[in-house]
Amino acid sequence: MPSQQELTDRAARLAAVREAMRTHGVDALVVPSSDPHLSEYLPQRWKGREWLSGFTGSVGTFIATQDAAGVWTDARYWEQAEAELAGGATRLMKIPSGASLLWIDWLADTLPPGATVAVDARVLGLATARALASALEARGIGLRMDADLLDEVWSGRPALPLEAVTEHVEPYCRLARADKLAALRAQMQRAGATHHFLSTLDDIAYLFNLRGSDVSYNPVFLAHALVTLQDATLFVAPGKVDAQCEARLRVDQVALAPYQDAEAALAALDPGAVVLLDPRRVTAGMRAALPDGVRVVEEINPTTLAKSRKTEQEAIHVRATMEQDGAALCEFFAWLEPLLADRGRAPLTELDIDTHITAARARRPGFVSPSFGTIAGFNANGAVMHYRAKQSSHAVIEGDGLLLIDSGGQYHGGTTDITRVVAVGAPSPAQMRDYTLVLKGLIALSSAQFPRGTRSPLLDALARAPIWAHGADYGHGTGHGVGYFLNVHEGPQSISPSTMPEPHTAMEPGMITSIEPGIYRPGRWGIRIENLSLAVPAGTTEFGEFLRFETLTLCPIDTRCLDRSVMTAHDCAWLNDYHTMVRQRLTPHVSGAARAWLHARTEAI
Amino acid sequence: MPSQQELTDRAARLAAVREAMRTHGVDALVVPSSDPHLSEYLPQRWKGREWLSGFTGSVGTFIATQDAAGVWTDARYWEQAEAELAGGATRLMKIPSGASLLWIDWLADTLPPGATVAVDARVLGLATARALASALEARGIGLRMDADLLDEVWSGRPALPLEAVTEHVEPYCRLARADKLAALRAQMQRAGATHHFLSTLDDIAYLFNLRGSDVSYNPVFLAHALVTLQDATLFVAPGKVDAQCEARLRVDQVALAPYQDAEAALAALDPGAVVLLDPRRVTAGMRAALPDGVRVVEEINPTTLAKSRKTEQEAIHVRATMEQDGAALCEFFAWLEPLLADRGRAPLTELDIDTHITAARARRPGFVSPSFGTIAGFNANGAVMHYRAKQSSHAVIEGDGLLLIDSGGQYHGGTTDITRVVAVGAPSPAQMRDYTLVLKGLIALSSAQFPRGTRSPLLDALARAPIWAHGADYGHGTGHGVGYFLNVHEGPQSISPSTMPEPHTAMEPGMITSIEPGIYRPGRWGIRIENLSLAVPAGTTEFGEFLRFETLTLCPIDTRCLDRSVMTAHDCAWLNDYHTMVRQRLTPHVSGAARAWLHARTEAI
Repeated sequence: MPSQQELTDRAARLAAVREAMRTHGVDALVVPSSDPHLSEYLPQRWKGREWLSGFTGSVGTFIATQDAAGVWTDARYWEQAEAELAGGATRLMKIPSGASLLWIDWLADTLPPGATVAVDARVLGLATARALASALEARGIGLRMDADLLDEVWSGRPALPLEAVTEHVEPYCRLARADKLAALRAQMQRAGATHHFLSTLDDIAYLFNLRGSDVSYNPVFLAHALVTLQDATLFVAPGKVDAQCEARLRVDQVALAPYQDAEAALAALDPGAVVLLDPRRVTAGMRAALPDGVRVVEEINPTTLAKSRKTEQEAIHVRATMEQDGAALCEFFAWLEPLLADRGRAPLTELDIDTHITAARARRPGFVSPSFGTIAGFNANGAVMHYRAKQSSHAVIEGDGLLLIDSGGQYHGGTTDITRVVAVGAPSPAQMRDYTLVLKGLIALSSAQFPRGTRSPLLDALARAPIWAHGADYGHGTGHGVGYFLNVHEGPQSISPSTMPEPHTAMEPGMITSIEPGIYRPGRWGIRIENLSLAVPAGTTEFGEFLRFETLTLCPIDTRCLDRSVMTAHDCAWLNDYHTMVRQRLTPHVSGAARAWLHARTEAI
Repeated sequence: MPSQQELTDRAARLAAVREAMRTHGVDALVVPSSDPHLSEYLPQRWKGREWLSGFTGSVGTFIATQDAAGVWTDARYWEQAEAELAGGATRLMKIPSGASLLWIDWLADTLPPGATVAVDARVLGLATARALASALEARGIGLRMDADLLDEVWSGRPALPLEAVTEHVEPYCRLARADKLAALRAQMQRAGATHHFLSTLDDIAYLFNLRGSDVSYNPVFLAHALVTLQDATLFVAPGKVDAQCEARLRVDQVALAPYQDAEAALAALDPGAVVLLDPRRVTAGMRAALPDGVRVVEEINPTTLAKSRKTEQEAIHVRATMEQDGAALCEFFAWLEPLLADRGRAPLTELDIDTHITAARARRPGFVSPSFGTIAGFNANGAVMHYRAKQSSHAVIEGDGLLLIDSGGQYHGGTTDITRVVAVGAPSPAQMRDYTLVLKGLIALSSAQFPRGTRSPLLDALARAPIWAHGADYGHGTGHGVGYFLNVHEGPQSISPSTMPEPHTAMEPGMITSIEPGIYRPGRWGIRIENLSLAVPAGTTEFGEFLRFETLTLCPIDTRCLDRSVMTAHDCAWLNDYHTMVRQRLTPHVSGAARAWLHARTEAI
C-alpha cells in the first residue's frame, strides 16, 4: 500500500497534469512506458507513468482524462499494480494476453468525436503511433503528438544519465565492429537504402561493440546512430566516450555527435536519401523529423536479426558462463537450504535471497551485474509474477510451501536468466501437482523439434498444453530472446501468444530464448521454471532444416516437489538426462557443501 | 500436361493482355483469385487467372508484366500448379506458409519506381488493397484500381450465374431471419453504425436464411446486402428469388434490388451515415463507392462471428448428419475394400471413388450435393494435396500402398468434410510410420483442452509437434472452420500457422473446425487424416473457461496401417474410445456388409 504522503503527491501531480490538459485543449493524455529508444528499462527521466500513478512495473501505459486515469498492463503485473495503485486515483486496466494495444481501443470507444488525444511523439513507437492515429481517425478523434505536457508540470524531473561508455572486447567479443558495419551495409544495399537510422540501445551497443550503464541491469547507453554506406555517426552525450575509444571508433569511420543532434541530422538529410528504419524500433518523432522528399524503407533493424543469432564463438562463451552461473547457484542453494531446514533459527526473509544470490554470482569471473532485479517470492508472493521484495514490504520464509527465485547475471561472456522453485518444509500435494505440470510444460517445449523459420509465437502452445490439460494457464509469454552480455529481453523472437507470428519472429539457429512456463494462484502460490535454450540444427530432411533446443541453463530442478502421477516416461527420462548433464558440467566448478548439494539434487528419479 | 492447343490459347490471351497493358500504360497486371464477394469458389466469370494461366486451384494470384507471368500459390497447390502450368509462359511462384501476401513484395521488389500496377478494385479485398497500396507507395510505384483490363480482351467471358434462391427452413433452420437481423442490429448499434454492408456470400445466406447454387459445392448465391437499423436491401439478380420468398422477406423488412445496384446504393448514402464494414470481407471497389462524408466503422462482419458459433439445435442436427454421412462411408468402404482385395479383377481407378462415394451419400436423407470435389489419390497422387483425378489424367489403384480419400457432403442439417487413408495390399513400414505420426497429430489436437478465446492459429503446433519430432511437416493449415449447410471453408477461426492470431480468430464454443494434419512425400505417397470437431465447454476453473473438441466425424480410422512402435498408451486409448463411439453411433444406420465392415474396422487395438 502506498503511503498517505505518496497518495497526496500523486493526486497533486495528476491535478497539475489535468490543468495543463485543459490549458492545451487536450481531453486525454497518454504516457507510454517508453523513452526515445523504446526501451523496456527506462532512465528515471522517462518514468512519467510511475511518477503519476505509482505503478513501477516495466510495462504499462498511463492515460488520464479529466475524469478518469488508468494504467493498462498485462497479467504479469496485475497483482503488483493492484497493490501499488491502491488508494490512488489511477485504475488498473487489465490487458488480456494478445491485446497489447487495448488502450487504443479504450480511447476510441470512450472519447467523443471531436475530442483530442495528446501523446509525445518522441517516446511513441512509429508502428504504435500509426495504430493509434488510425483508430482515432476512424472515430473522428484528434491526435496531437507535438507536446510533452508532462515536462510542463514535472518540477525536478531527473536529468539524463551520463555514465561512461566502454568497449566490449576480446575474447568475449569476437566479431569486429568493422565486420558488423559491413554486414549491415550489405543489408542496406539490398534494401536500396543510403542511410540507416537506429535508436534501440541494444542494437547500437551490439553494432558498435560498446557497452554502458545508463539504466539498471541492461549494459547499454543512451544514443542514436545514423549509418551511411561509408561512415556512421553515434549521437551520444559528450564525455561519455573517452578519447581512446573515440579514436578507435574513428578508425572504423564512426564519428561522435551530441546526443540531442540526432533529430536535426535526420532533418538535414538530402532529399535523395533512402532511409532504412524499423517502425517498431524508431519513434514517431524521429520519423517525423525526416524531410518530405526522403524515401523510407521500413524493415526490421538488420542488427536486431544479426544480434539474435549468436555465433558459435559466442555460444562457447555462453556455455562457459552458464557453468559459472550454475556453480554460483549451487553455492547459493547450499547456503540456503540448511537455513530453511533449521526451524529454530530466525527466519530468512525474501530480501536475504537477493543479497546472497547476487553475492554468489559476484564471486564468479566475468560477472558484471544482475541482469534484472531478483524476484524471490514465497508462497503467495510467488504468485505476483514480477514481485520485488522491498525493505518496506516483504515476507519471511516460514512454514511450508514453495519459494520462487527468478534471477540472472550479466557477464562479459553472456547474460543469464533462471527461475527455480524450491520446497520449503513440506509442499502440499496441490503445490506439487502444479509444480510438475509446469515442469511438463518446460519439458514439452525443451524437447520439441521444429522446422527452421517456424514463427516463435506458434511454439507457445507446446509448453501450455500440459498445463491447459489440467485447467490452468499463465498470463505471460513462454519465452523471450536473451542478449549476449546485453538485454535480458531482446527480440525479435518471442514465444508468446501475444506476439504476432510475423516473418521477423522466425526461430533461427543461434537464437537464445528462455523457456519459462508457470502457474500462479493469487494469494496462494506461484510456480515458474525457467531455462535458457539455444536453437541448434537438428538435421535436414526432405521437409527442410529442423531445429531443436539445447538447454543452456545448468542448475538442478527440485525433485522433492514432483508429483510422479502426472509424469510420463519421457518426462522422467528428460529430467534424468538433464540432471546428468548438470552434475557433469558443474562438478568441476564447485566444492565442499556446494558440490554435495549439487550431487544430492541431481540424483536420478 | 496441358495440350498444345491449350498452350497456344493461353499464349494468345497473355499476348492480348500485354497489348492492353501497353495501351493503358500498365506495367504489371494483378488478377486476384477472387470475385466481388471475395469468394473461394468462383463463378466462371471471375476465373480470369485460370483463363490466363491454366492453373485451376482455388487459391492463386496471377501477375503479368511485359516479360514475366506468374501464379503465386501455397504449398497445397504446388504439385498441381507445376503440372497445370507446364509448358506455358506462367511460372509457379511458391508462397511459403505464413506469407500469403508475398506477391505484393515481389511487385515492390521487382518494379522500378514510377512503374504502374493495375488491379480491378471490384475483386480486391479492402485490407489487401491497403497492403498493396502501402507497399507500392513505399517504393514509388503507382497503383490503378479503376480498370478491368481482362474484360477488354476476354471474348466470350461467361455471364453471371442465375440459379434460383431457396429458403433454409425448419427443422434444420432454427433461428428466424428476424432474430438474426435483430442480433446484427444490436451489434451495429454497439458500434455506433447506422448501416452495415456485406458482400460475403455465406454471411448473406446465413443472415437471410437463404441458400443458392450459383457456384459449385457451396450453397450460396450472388448478392450484396445493405442493412439499416430498420430494414435491409438484398441486391440479387431479378428472377432468382421467387414471389413467395420475396413476400416472406418483405415481412421481415427485407427488400430486393438488382444485383448491380449495390455500388450505387452505397454511393447514394446520406453523409450522416455510419457504415459498419469488414475490410477483409468487402472489396476496395465497394469501399471507394462510399461518399466522402460517410463515416466507416471497420469491424469483422457480426454475422461471420454469429454463424461460426453453431447453436445447440444446429449441433444436434450436425451430429445426426454425421451419423448419416458415416453410414454412407461404411457402405462405400464395404463396397470398396473387397474390390481392392480382389487382384484378379480389372483394377479400380481413382475416378470410381468419387462416383461411388457420392452415390452412397446421395442415398442418405437430407443430402444436397458434395461439399467439394472428391480427392481420391493413390500413393504418389495422394501427395498432391488438392489432387483431382480427371478423365484425362488419373491413376488405377493397383499394387500396394495407401489410398487417400478426402470428401464431404452438403446436407440440409450440416456440412461434412472427412479424409481417410486406407491400406491397399500391404503398405510399407515407412508408409505406416508416416500414417501413425499423422494420427498422433490428430489425436494430440483432438484431445487438447485450452482456454476459451485462445487464438486458433496458436493451436496449430499441437498437431504438428509429433510430426515435427520425426523431421516431417505439412504445407497446409491444420484446421478450417466449417459451415452449417454452408461453405466447407468458413471463418473466422483457422488453425493455421499462416493466419494471424488476431482477436477474431479466437476459439469459441459452438465452432466447428476440421483437424487434418498430414504428411506428403512428393512422388511417393500422401497421408491426411481429417475429422470435424465441435468446440464444447470443458469446465471453468480459477483460470477461466476452458474448451475441448468433441469429435463430430464418425468413420473408422484404418488400424491396419498403424506403426504401434510410435504410439503412446494415450494414443491407443484415444483411438479405441473413438472406435467404440463410432461403432455405437453408426450401427443403427447400417446393415449387411456395411455393418460387418464397421464392426471389423472398429475392433480395439
